[in-house]
Amino acid sequence: MKIINTVKAMQQEADSLRMAGKRIGLVPTMGALHDGHLSLLTMAKEKSDIVVVSIFVNPTQFGPDEDLDAYPRDFDRDERLLIRAGADIIYYPAVDEMYPTSYHTYVTVDTLTEKLCGASRPGHFRGVTTIVTKLFNAVKPHCAVFGEKDFQQVAVIRRMAVDLNMDVEIITAPIVREKDSLAMSSRNNYLSIEERQDALILYNSLEKARKLIREGMRDVDKISKAIEALILEKDNVSIDYINLIHPGTLEDIQHIEDSVQIVLAVFVGKIRLIDNLRVDL
Amino acid sequence: MKIINTVKAMQQEADSLRMAGKRIGLVPTMGALHDGHLSLLTMAKEKSDIVVVSIFVNPTQFGPDEDLDAYPRDFDRDERLLIRAGADIIYYPAVDEMYPTSYHTYVTVDTLTEKLCGASRPGHFRGVTTIVTKLFNAVKPHCAVFGEKDFQQVAVIRRMAVDLNMDVEIITAPIVREKDSLAMSSRNNYLSIEERQDALILYNSLEKARKLIREGMRDVDKISKAIEALILEKDNVSIDYINLIHPGTLEDIQHIEDSVQIVLAVFVGKIRLIDNLRVDL
Repeated sequence: MKIINTVKAMQQEADSLRMAGKRIGLVPTMGALHDGHLSLLTMAKEKSDIVVVSIFVNPTQFGPDEDLDAYPRDFDRDERLLIRAGADIIYYPAVDEMYPTSYHTYVTVDTLTEKLCGASRPGHFRGVTTIVTKLFNAVKPHCAVFGEKDFQQVAVIRRMAVDLNMDVEIITAPIVREKDSLAMSSRNNYLSIEERQDALILYNSLEKARKLIREGMRDVDKISKAIEALILEKDNVSIDYINLIHPGTLEDIQHIEDSVQIVLAVFVGKIRLIDNLRVDL
Repeated sequence: MKIINTVKAMQQEADSLRMAGKRIGLVPTMGALHDGHLSLLTMAKEKSDIVVVSIFVNPTQFGPDEDLDAYPRDFDRDERLLIRAGADIIYYPAVDEMYPTSYHTYVTVDTLTEKLCGASRPGHFRGVTTIVTKLFNAVKPHCAVFGEKDFQQVAVIRRMAVDLNMDVEIITAPIVREKDSLAMSSRNNYLSIEERQDALILYNSLEKARKLIREGMRDVDKISKAIEALILEKDNVSIDYINLIHPGTLEDIQHIEDSVQIVLAVFVGKIRLIDNLRVDL
């Protein structure tokens, strides 16, 4: 497995791979790898000849009061996991390689980014679309794999890739959950034992919503209120958003007629967690 | 010479050319070609094996009160000129191929775009950087050639290409002038006979500034005032901006110490024209 640290070296590697007829798959990560990331790698291996996993804790997608400095970093552990899982290349640039002091360019997607995580994390998606553009230009992948836990992120990246004519196939992989159903996230590491228990409320409330829909409830207000009440039974938990949206457009649904994506963001203590679930009628 | 109309067909052509080891050069234009454009094509032919000239009147770089609808379009004439000049491919997409109704993504460069043409044409550079990103992703060029008449545009595109890790060499070609020294521009077609005469004031005032500098004047205020006075002798001419800037950073200079770029934008009647000249001490 190769480790590449500079844009130029990564581009040269990508050019030789492409000239040799190899299909390049990219898995963009911020490190602190868990089985969710490794499932993206497995998917990328199925879809390409050479898998590049990028590890970069991207400062531009963190708000000023967010956890950029605290975000878990352990390159040696990530490297061991990726060797074992069969990655071909780790692209691991330093912050000043990606954002030198003269840096001034951003990629933005309108509309889709204004609600949900975009509303509570201003600038977050601008950071995401900017870094993904940079990673695509450095790694020159044929396809890139993203996790469906970040449901809005996937929609935003698909929009960007289509709009900017990026010749990269965007592939998604399903959420990977712990045994007790908590969606895997590097931020789960922040939770105390008690918070870890409270965090089960995310998936439990998604399941509750699915049950209500399966039982025939179609009024989104009623469903939202029911799961809101469930979540607020927990003392240490507060709601950022609960929305039932169209899986393609992300537009809010009032009355369920076919497929619906239930998306939520919840604070457990000070830790913000997200999860989502699709229900097809 | 091939004419390609869709993003997908252009990308497939670019992929086969690259697999065959060909170096692709791109000359982005809005059509209405003149000898300035053809000089970019000549430069591109020197620097690459296959030259793609794109023709696309890009709506996102025009302001609401600007000349998008009036902008000259004559594809047949452009095609004849490009065959004669030896272009290999014309990339000529329709507006709804580039901007379908669902379109929502923009590329912006901060700081550099806030002054000069950016100040008088809000959103203009956002449109330019967005379309150039799209053209780069469709044509996949090794190099792209831009004219130095659009001095600020070249600086903005260079910044974008570096910041977003675009693997495209940005090449510039010098301003091409009419016999009487007016910088070539598709917008010169708009000028009445009288205005065409008045438009000589752009280059005359640049030459005047150069003369003052050569004679030892170093105070930028004095130089600006002198050429301002010269321009305002013309009844039908008004000044958008006259700046003496650092050629690399575009920052305003107060006292000339080495190289300086004199940049100006002037309205002749209702027609806005730009020009620039570098003076090295």
